Amino acid sequence: MTIDFDKSGGLVPAIAQDADTGAVLMLAWMNREAYEETVRTGRAVYFSRSRNRLWRKGEESGHVQEVREIYLDCDADTILLKVHQIGGAACHEGYQSCFFRRVEGDKLRVVGERLFDPKQVYKK
Amino acid sequence: MTIDFDKSGGLVPAIAQDADTGAVLMLAWMNREAYEETVRTGRAVYFSRSRNRLWRKGEESGHVQEVREIYLDCDADTILLKVHQIGGAACHEGYQSCFFRRVEGDKLRVVGERLFDPKQVYKK
Repeated sequence: MTIDFDKSGGLVPAIAQDADTGAVLMLAWMNREAYEETVRTGRAVYFSRSRNRLWRKGEESGHVQEVREIYLDCDADTILLKVHQIGGAACHEGYQSCFFRRVEGDKLRVVGERLFDPKQVYKK
Repeated sequence: MTIDFDKSGGLVPAIAQDADTGAVLMLAWMNREAYEETVRTGRAVYFSRSRNRLWRKGEESGHVQEVREIYLDCDADTILLKVHQIGGAACHEGYQSCFFRRVEGDKLRVVGERLFDPKQVYKK
């Protein structure tokens, strides 16, 4: 079983989908190390491009993602995780899904429900 | 409404999700031109990295994707399309979803149902 990490410079996109509702929660990136730790621990670990390091999802907020199933696409260069999102919100802005804005003409309309206030969760 | 096409060298990932079932069908890439044509025509247009040109999904197979809704993520660098997949199969290998293989230990198990034989659809 070979994931093609080389195609995009060591990182492949990983989609997190809610295992129960089917909602697409977020897209992040994985390098080989992140993938292997995800498999080993059963919790989603990504690679943060902005921080240039492993990102154990929920390491700060406690909102970890328990991985139920892992799928690989036909080209072996995209990963799909079916997860249980602890806390209900995958997005750092407090929404269930990072895709909480719908394109309507030239505008974006917020359609997601905010589950928490980021200021209360990320104490910076 | 600004999508950050510059962050990844002009291309952002676009997830296609079945609007009715919620199944994640595929992930492909869009540049600005692909996105604008998608919005204008209501059919998914991607940018093929391997062919280095616009890829009007279904242009060869007829299996176009009618776009019902478009969502943008919190960082404005990933697109989620809710689509109606003509022909039922998004994957060029004949499966509903490109994510037809589940990781089981060190192996991949095919869990999707094949809806068509690629040889019959892509006459090469």
